[in-house]
Amino acid sequence: MNTFGNIFRLTCFGESHGIVLGGVIDGCPAGVLVDEDFVQSELDRRRPGQSNLTTSRKEADQVEFLSGIFEGKTTGTPIGFVIYNTNQHSSDYDNVKDIFRPSHADFTYTQKYGFRDYRGGGRSSARETACRVVAGAMAKLLLKQAGFNINIHAEMTEVGGSSENIEEIILKAKEKGDTVGGIITCNISGVPVGWGEPVFGKLQANLASAMLSINAAKGFEYGMGFEMAKKFGSQVNDIFESRDGEITTRTNNSGGIQGGISNGQDIYFRVAFKPVATLLTEQPTVDKDGNPTVVKVRGRHDACVLPRAVPIVESMAAIVLADAYLLNRTSRL
Amino acid sequence: MNTFGNIFRLTCFGESHGIVLGGVIDGCPAGVLVDEDFVQSELDRRRPGQSNLTTSRKEADQVEFLSGIFEGKTTGTPIGFVIYNTNQHSSDYDNVKDIFRPSHADFTYTQKYGFRDYRGGGRSSARETACRVVAGAMAKLLLKQAGFNINIHAEMTEVGGSSENIEEIILKAKEKGDTVGGIITCNISGVPVGWGEPVFGKLQANLASAMLSINAAKGFEYGMGFEMAKKFGSQVNDIFESRDGEITTRTNNSGGIQGGISNGQDIYFRVAFKPVATLLTEQPTVDKDGNPTVVKVRGRHDACVLPRAVPIVESMAAIVLADAYLLNRTSRL
Amino acid sequence: MNTFGNIFRLTCFGESHGIVLGGVIDGCPAGVLVDEDFVQSELDRRRPGQSNLTTSRKEADQVEFLSGIFEGKTTGTPIGFVIYNTNQHSSDYDNVKDIFRPSHADFTYTQKYGFRDYRGGGRSSARETACRVVAGAMAKLLLKQAGFNINIHAEMTEVGGSSENIEEIILKAKEKGDTVGGIITCNISGVPVGWGEPVFGKLQANLASAMLSINAAKGFEYGMGFEMAKKFGSQVNDIFESRDGEITTRTNNSGGIQGGISNGQDIYFRVAFKPVATLLTEQPTVDKDGNPTVVKVRGRHDACVLPRAVPIVESMAAIVLADAYLLNRTSRL
Amino acid sequence: MNTFGNIFRLTCFGESHGIVLGGVIDGCPAGVLVDEDFVQSELDRRRPGQSNLTTSRKEADQVEFLSGIFEGKTTGTPIGFVIYNTNQHSSDYDNVKDIFRPSHADFTYTQKYGFRDYRGGGRSSARETACRVVAGAMAKLLLKQAGFNINIHAEMTEVGGSSENIEEIILKAKEKGDTVGGIITCNISGVPVGWGEPVFGKLQANLASAMLSINAAKGFEYGMGFEMAKKFGSQVNDIFESRDGEITTRTNNSGGIQGGISNGQDIYFRVAFKPVATLLTEQPTVDKDGNPTVVKVRGRHDACVLPRAVPIVESMAAIVLADAYLLNRTSRL
Repeated sequence: MNTFGNIFRLTCFGESHGIVLGGVIDGCPAGVLVDEDFVQSELDRRRPGQSNLTTSRKEADQVEFLSGIFEGKTTGTPIGFVIYNTNQHSSDYDNVKDIFRPSHADFTYTQKYGFRDYRGGGRSSARETACRVVAGAMAKLLLKQAGFNINIHAEMTEVGGSSENIEEIILKAKEKGDTVGGIITCNISGVPVGWGEPVFGKLQANLASAMLSINAAKGFEYGMGFEMAKKFGSQVNDIFESRDGEITTRTNNSGGIQGGISNGQDIYFRVAFKPVATLLTEQPTVDKDGNPTVVKVRGRHDACVLPRAVPIVESMAAIVLADAYLLNRTSRL
Repeated sequence: MNTFGNIFRLTCFGESHGIVLGGVIDGCPAGVLVDEDFVQSELDRRRPGQSNLTTSRKEADQVEFLSGIFEGKTTGTPIGFVIYNTNQHSSDYDNVKDIFRPSHADFTYTQKYGFRDYRGGGRSSARETACRVVAGAMAKLLLKQAGFNINIHAEMTEVGGSSENIEEIILKAKEKGDTVGGIITCNISGVPVGWGEPVFGKLQANLASAMLSINAAKGFEYGMGFEMAKKFGSQVNDIFESRDGEITTRTNNSGGIQGGISNGQDIYFRVAFKPVATLLTEQPTVDKDGNPTVVKVRGRHDACVLPRAVPIVESMAAIVLADAYLLNRTSRL
Repeated sequence: MNTFGNIFRLTCFGESHGIVLGGVIDGCPAGVLVDEDFVQSELDRRRPGQSNLTTSRKEADQVEFLSGIFEGKTTGTPIGFVIYNTNQHSSDYDNVKDIFRPSHADFTYTQKYGFRDYRGGGRSSARETACRVVAGAMAKLLLKQAGFNINIHAEMTEVGGSSENIEEIILKAKEKGDTVGGIITCNISGVPVGWGEPVFGKLQANLASAMLSINAAKGFEYGMGFEMAKKFGSQVNDIFESRDGEITTRTNNSGGIQGGISNGQDIYFRVAFKPVATLLTEQPTVDKDGNPTVVKVRGRHDACVLPRAVPIVESMAAIVLADAYLLNRTSRL
Repeated sequence: MNTFGNIFRLTCFGESHGIVLGGVIDGCPAGVLVDEDFVQSELDRRRPGQSNLTTSRKEADQVEFLSGIFEGKTTGTPIGFVIYNTNQHSSDYDNVKDIFRPSHADFTYTQKYGFRDYRGGGRSSARETACRVVAGAMAKLLLKQAGFNINIHAEMTEVGGSSENIEEIILKAKEKGDTVGGIITCNISGVPVGWGEPVFGKLQANLASAMLSINAAKGFEYGMGFEMAKKFGSQVNDIFESRDGEITTRTNNSGGIQGGISNGQDIYFRVAFKPVATLLTEQPTVDKDGNPTVVKVRGRHDACVLPRAVPIVESMAAIVLADAYLLNRTSRL
């Protein structure tokens, strides 16, 4: 279950401290000009060390395409790629080998599989998301070159409960060896009417699945979201009207989707992220035999996932849209 | 894209005013005793007319199994079933044939497919969810007979912004011809450690996809959810400890899932539902040519989806869990 | 695993002696005019009792569409359908309840699932293929209305080793209570260049899977097939040439497919079918406890599957092509 | 459509003259000891240059595992791997850039995708099959370590119509710059009763799909195959009997599968391969504009695919079986 999408599909692999992360993008149509600089620039947005908000780990995160591209264009065959892991300090993790870090996947992986790759969290590390950014960048290129003027823009809108002083709150948490949660808001303009499938393939269901598959995500809402649960229908229905010969809606409380299908208005949603589970302070826990112990994590860690999660949110949204676009090519005779 | 699940899979079909709704449950193991009374009782929970909170439409919602069962037990072959539509008043919809009801799927379906079955909302009607309840009931039977003591319990916890006087708020909205939104909370106890897949098949991602595929759902959060976005790691990490020889956590802010995999604690989540889009008051809108008009819907409609959405939320959760259980049978040598 | 296809997908259900057979066609584009007479005429070709070559069982095989069609056209939503079982004599099977008929699926089903629906072979009966004919007819309608002049024609070309006197050979076997095998050849003209996927979705691989999923099929070959294994490259390569401004091949030993993708020439293939396993003479066998016994089957059975398998072969081919067509809509930017 | 399998799944990528071939094996259970020497030895069987029967091209075909393995065992997470392309002579293909080699995929790829990677056949090259051998070797390790004593053995049984002097026939063809077809027979012992799914996932359908996805394969038959089409039921039914307390069959004309499900007897099948399309003699053809020209291929090519196809047939069979095994874990309560 390491594949996402129906037509435009990403299959990914790799662990935090393995040789590489990698992926295969299958179903990308032939003829897309691969702007490698753009792909790399997207990856760079996720890379640590971009600002003092993020971990000081150095990860080059250089994508290397291995297949599916010829003379600069996609050939219609699968696009394999890797990102080398170059700066791992696996020994940083020797002390967590036999213990379970609180609110990490150490315990569940060990129980499910019988053992785990404990180095840097193995497959459960958010480092895996770099592959999604590569696929997301390819999805953006596809949508653009297919002639759509779609703009996917995510940003941090809340950290630690505040929508102001976001950077300071993160820096303060970092100083204390603590971590902090927050909210990323994503707005997508330019999606034409008709993308998404009516029942289980609703556009919002695919977006929700995409977002909740990102490490540390705890919630998803679109349009007016949870706030809409407090309202009366007479307050929030989006009234249709004609403007410049096109049918549109006066308001957009629906968030650009009705009945699972895009309606031409902006799609917007919010994703809640918990604080990073890795604290630099000592925490009590148990070892694999259930004996009480303490864990003090070494290494270089983010105090907040948000700065680096912004391009991941955009990328997963782009993958969902590229897939919905291609699937919608088959909706009419 | 009318199939949900990987191993335990529901494929469903049918429109609000067609002959039947129906579905095929594929991948249900052989040997499950089919308690038809239980399945029907689950369906009855969703049926309208159970209380004065819901529409007075009469829908018998009698399930008829067509295959996959022999001598009272599942045979391992696909379980087909239908629910007859018996009380449609299609003429109630003649007046919306050529106009787009606000915040409904009328516009998006027409644009996507070129035309639409306008009677009772066609495939976009929430009536489709009856099939999910049948599959959910089968999933519950499977989990129980497989020896798990899993309890899935959903309930309305908020309507119109209030967690009290829920019934009164709904009745008041109904009197006014208005509708109201709310929140359903679901708690699941008894899930063993190890269900769910690490990356794109995270248990929370599948639950989110399941919930957002329900009509009128606008948001999903699990564990501490959006509230967790306001917190610091030091406040919310779930500390492991041993209790009675078993590894457990002091708190359960994670909501029973870590790294996409169940950790043995209760899984809990909340789903936000918008107010029903169908008002009994007159609303402005446009017709298919974009000309301004008004819509006044006839027929019998719920003032709030929540009372009837409770069993749907439980059912979709049960399907996700049954699928995760079967998939987890292949996780180790 | 009762679903076939990627975009145009058939999910089917039902047993020989259950209430109905049925299926769900998902992914059929909106706007296809549903010529129900044509669908029924295709079903009639498979129905027993069409000639003295086939069983005298009466099966009305009347298809009833349940969803996905409005005002005579497909709506883009799933097309559910059923075919009622009306002429079962389940008591004919009481004597095989606890024994294993030679070369039937009785033994394997019982071992796999723990028990089996023994009436008429249950799910293993070829009666299941009626659903494929419905989906095949819909696939043919889709391809035609999409503007392709594709002609799919299957016929019996060999029975009992002879390509002549086919009817007599079948009748002679029938008289003796014996059964006989044979070969169906299928020719498909009018498929445009470009359908099929390069590696695992090769057109011939999908056709092979489709044909070998038909009861009693033992082999598949396309183009020159097994005969080609005897040849030298210099004898069988298909030389390209231009004719009337179009690139074509002098010969068509390849069978219309190169590298898994249609090349515009006729696609042709042959399917080998074994003799029906049900003999009307007494055969030794064992019961479920392994004790020796004899089986003498009652009931009405075909002496040869071929006459009724012809429309099934065509139908499965049509489904494969419809799916390849829709998938190919996404192959280029 | 570069993914094969349901639970045990191979997704592969790469072109003949790209940087690497590669793949991702998803769904392999945790705990399988990865005997890399065995995997490499399987790859070596496919590698050219093993005997004077095959091309003199040097391809190291060294597999490098990238993920999913820790401390020598599979972790349950996806197993990425690459095989470097080290000995390409891309310039050998400059002269075929704008022309279509007879019976190759040049024409169909160009028509489908608008252009093609012409170097060494690109994605249509049989070099792609190296990845299948890696996945097949992993499947064999899984089956063995799961406690099954399954033996998958393929061999060349016919070349150029002869079952004798196979090596000489190939060498003679090679001397002439010609190529020759043949048949590979595969026998599988030790498969327990119950693997395979009844309708579309029949074991023989999956094997047929697997085999026909191999380059140059033109036909598949299992059990008595096409010969069975000449027979009467009274001649070929497999009579059940008890032997040493186990239910078995006197004969095995069915080829170890009944109703799509393994019956415990040996599974055997034959695959027909056409002669390699690449001749070292001059052939007429057309260029991309339809103008007549001639093609004389340079480079090092096999005169017969069979010697190197033997491990590919075994590998694809192993993948089908591993997948059927894992899926069968979910067949009963």
